[in-house]
Amino acid sequence: MEKLQTITANRVDLLTRTIAPVTMSFVDGRITSIRPATAIECTGYLIPGFVDAHIHIESSMLLPSQFARAAVLHGTVATVSDPHEIANVCGIAGVELMLRDAAKTNFKFYFGAPACVPATPFETAGAVLDVAAVTRLLDDPRIGYLSEMMNFPGVLTREPDVMAKINAARLRGKPIDGHAPGLRGEAAARYIAAGISTDHECTTREEALDKIAAGCQIAIREGSAARNYAALESLLGDHPAAIMFCSDDKHPDELLLGHINQLAVRAIANGYDLMDVLRACSLNAIRHYRLAVGLLQVGDPADFLWVEDLTTLTIRETYINGQCVARLGKSLLPEIPPEILNQFAATRLAETDIQIPAKSKRLRIMEVIDGQLITRSTMGAARIVDDFAVTDPGGDLLKLVVVNRYLPQAQPAVAFVRGFGIAAGAIASSVAHDSHNIVAVGVSDHDLISAINAVIDDQGGLSLALNHEIKTLPLPVAGLMSTESCQTVGAAYAALDQRIKQLGCSLRAPYMTLSFLSLLVIPSLKLSDQGLFDVDKFEFVDLFV
Amino acid sequence: MEKLQTITANRVDLLTRTIAPVTMSFVDGRITSIRPATAIECTGYLIPGFVDAHIHIESSMLLPSQFARAAVLHGTVATVSDPHEIANVCGIAGVELMLRDAAKTNFKFYFGAPACVPATPFETAGAVLDVAAVTRLLDDPRIGYLSEMMNFPGVLTREPDVMAKINAARLRGKPIDGHAPGLRGEAAARYIAAGISTDHECTTREEALDKIAAGCQIAIREGSAARNYAALESLLGDHPAAIMFCSDDKHPDELLLGHINQLAVRAIANGYDLMDVLRACSLNAIRHYRLAVGLLQVGDPADFLWVEDLTTLTIRETYINGQCVARLGKSLLPEIPPEILNQFAATRLAETDIQIPAKSKRLRIMEVIDGQLITRSTMGAARIVDDFAVTDPGGDLLKLVVVNRYLPQAQPAVAFVRGFGIAAGAIASSVAHDSHNIVAVGVSDHDLISAINAVIDDQGGLSLALNHEIKTLPLPVAGLMSTESCQTVGAAYAALDQRIKQLGCSLRAPYMTLSFLSLLVIPSLKLSDQGLFDVDKFEFVDLFV
Repeated sequence: MEKLQTITANRVDLLTRTIAPVTMSFVDGRITSIRPATAIECTGYLIPGFVDAHIHIESSMLLPSQFARAAVLHGTVATVSDPHEIANVCGIAGVELMLRDAAKTNFKFYFGAPACVPATPFETAGAVLDVAAVTRLLDDPRIGYLSEMMNFPGVLTREPDVMAKINAARLRGKPIDGHAPGLRGEAAARYIAAGISTDHECTTREEALDKIAAGCQIAIREGSAARNYAALESLLGDHPAAIMFCSDDKHPDELLLGHINQLAVRAIANGYDLMDVLRACSLNAIRHYRLAVGLLQVGDPADFLWVEDLTTLTIRETYINGQCVARLGKSLLPEIPPEILNQFAATRLAETDIQIPAKSKRLRIMEVIDGQLITRSTMGAARIVDDFAVTDPGGDLLKLVVVNRYLPQAQPAVAFVRGFGIAAGAIASSVAHDSHNIVAVGVSDHDLISAINAVIDDQGGLSLALNHEIKTLPLPVAGLMSTESCQTVGAAYAALDQRIKQLGCSLRAPYMTLSFLSLLVIPSLKLSDQGLFDVDKFEFVDLFV
Repeated sequence: MEKLQTITANRVDLLTRTIAPVTMSFVDGRITSIRPATAIECTGYLIPGFVDAHIHIESSMLLPSQFARAAVLHGTVATVSDPHEIANVCGIAGVELMLRDAAKTNFKFYFGAPACVPATPFETAGAVLDVAAVTRLLDDPRIGYLSEMMNFPGVLTREPDVMAKINAARLRGKPIDGHAPGLRGEAAARYIAAGISTDHECTTREEALDKIAAGCQIAIREGSAARNYAALESLLGDHPAAIMFCSDDKHPDELLLGHINQLAVRAIANGYDLMDVLRACSLNAIRHYRLAVGLLQVGDPADFLWVEDLTTLTIRETYINGQCVARLGKSLLPEIPPEILNQFAATRLAETDIQIPAKSKRLRIMEVIDGQLITRSTMGAARIVDDFAVTDPGGDLLKLVVVNRYLPQAQPAVAFVRGFGIAAGAIASSVAHDSHNIVAVGVSDHDLISAINAVIDDQGGLSLALNHEIKTLPLPVAGLMSTESCQTVGAAYAALDQRIKQLGCSLRAPYMTLSFLSLLVIPSLKLSDQGLFDVDKFEFVDLFV
């Protein structure tokens, strides 16, 4: 029996939309009484803990238990999380590692069954989650929902395997998350009618309104990769019951700075109703996913934040199941001994492996656009030296390499890219959506191979190479996650980020941009381990034209 | 391994809102393929099976397995059912009897945890389901939701015990059904904000619109007791995603005639979009409650109807889990050996037990209103014979008696009622909402006692007495349900109904009206086993004034 704890403070009750001074008692993790108090006794406010309605924990490069230690500092007590990244690398075993690690902390992780592994058949992933595998996951009581159904063309045409996954979730009473960027009107309605009940990909208010009209909940996304908050904020005013907040992808350096709390503060500052804002931070996701997260009611698990005021939401303490998990900027969640799992068979490469014999004088060139996941496909002159097509840093023409990490000696795919702007050096990463092969960009073959081999030596991670300088951030868990804390990983990530920018890169987040250059479902020209891919035609194309 | 079955017919797909000729194959209860066919091969249409979104199975006076045998004839394959009546009599043991009986048939019963047992503290019920008992039920994986939260004043004031039941359901990821007759605007929104997501009590379109705006699903009710379809039908036109169909209470004689199919036919005849109508009959409830009921998709359980056309919906065959459960008007579900459970301690009464010594010359009189559950409270002259207040059939002043069935020798409560209009005889019933004591109405004390004692002799049931004529419909299961088939029970019920009408009763459903005269939560004057109750003042009042 734990000892009775009490807090006297102003309770924000989202069910009654009232704020009143109370003395709240809790014991054994549950709220046992909430009695009126006088205002004079009270300091601060109690509000329900925040929920991230859609996130890939792997994007933080942290194991769930380390993610939790950082997130509670910002008042996050629960996530609706899609283990899509580790599933692409390690399959069901990867999902189970996430579940096991998550179960060792008090933080409330709700994992889904990844719906689309691999993203396309045109790349080499570490696993295939077919209908049987997804169904097996959905049978697991720890799996709460079917994660984002990215194959929206397959939903629109009611492709059998796609519908089988959706129907498997439906028949198990588990909700189905959507992912339908840009879908409008009839098409949006048709997508949602298949049984999908959320979407986090809206980029315009009009798109969101179409989806809301079709019965969909909208998760407004503001993460490290995509930022849609400004475009969608006004929905808080007229559709407060249909809005949730999410980050989708949250890098370790940015997780150090804030999470859902940042959106709450911004919405309050912009004049939205406090109750509607806090609903979007917790209640709406709790209700939609039917999460066992408390809402400051008697009998509820004591999941709440004690904040100084209702403007800055400065967090005094965060509680989960009655445990104080953060106090005055210090995380009180324990560090959990990490478990390591990986799929990594690639062996060291030589410079000759990435040389490109010139077949003609014109190239297809990928052009990256800062802050966007799409690339442009352009044509340009090749720079040819000794019958090889080579980089031209003066013309911002760099080499892009993707190496199959699941085979020992696969032939790398090599192409040319514009937009990174570095004058020297190379960076590489085993975070490379969605199959997470090794992706690298650089000026010289020497540095490219150094960066790639550094990732291979670490069996996954991020790296930067310039002559003899080699910096790495090892990610031993699936080549996606560190075993260290957010502070450590965030600092290492920031150091790499700063160094590449010193070398001339003007992109806001070079490693992030790099990690999406092999994602074949986003236009226009991408590079998989199997070659250069024209997303608009959805087929492989030649480098030389 | 069951043999492969195939049907070639026109499939109505509610997910794509299309109709196409297909050959559908199913084996082991699941649909394994749906292939295009040519129209010439097809006869009839395949549509998803119907779901009653809110029903008390006990109101059919049939055990679940017998209810199922009748309902499948009308295309019903699933019910969202609240075992509220048997819970009032037998508590959790009663709910468990329903679950056991239901589990023996292929029909898809989804039971909830009754939220309000007993309905008030001013009557004697057989059980109390407190927060602990409701929580225990909610912990049972066979219990899918919290049944109608009738105590809407308690929700509006956030009464602790009421909120504890709601929160217990919420924390278990189980939806909470509402019951908030007449609630509008802010009050409706406040009721729903507590966590309630359905309502089946709307009587006007405006009331329903207020509740829909607050995020609530509306179950349009058309049963034996309450009929709201005509008033709410237009919602199918503008809010098709928010509408379900239900019966709430369905008597055995009416269950023989039809069920949800009657509403479907009516809505189609009135010109509503076929897909929207069929959604209200199945999809919307399946989605809201996340039921494991098939929707004619590959991989789904083969739950469907094969109908002749899309106007009359004449049912050729009904399938549940691939089993043909009804064919051409014949139920193919097996009869299940019934299990009997009861709480019945009342012992035979004598005429002297219901005599009323006259305390004054003026009485409070209950006036029933045909087709409504409310009564009027009026004052009138007593007819006094030998210092006793007696009935006056010429003035339609009859005696109403309620006998506590849970004690051997409780003093009956006696009052006077107008509106039954019978010239002679008496009827009695152990179906008496919500505590299900014995309620009787009649002209002479002799017939009243005969009718009451007949119910007592049967340990529950309906009866009619006129001199030496005594007719009964025994209801041995909790005094609420027969062990016989719908045909048998429906015929017996119809015979009693006709006989009382022959005796002069002009009420549409005399036994139903009688059964609501002890329901203390409906205005204005009611009679519990503990005495005459003024619902508007919510207190006991004297018979004499």
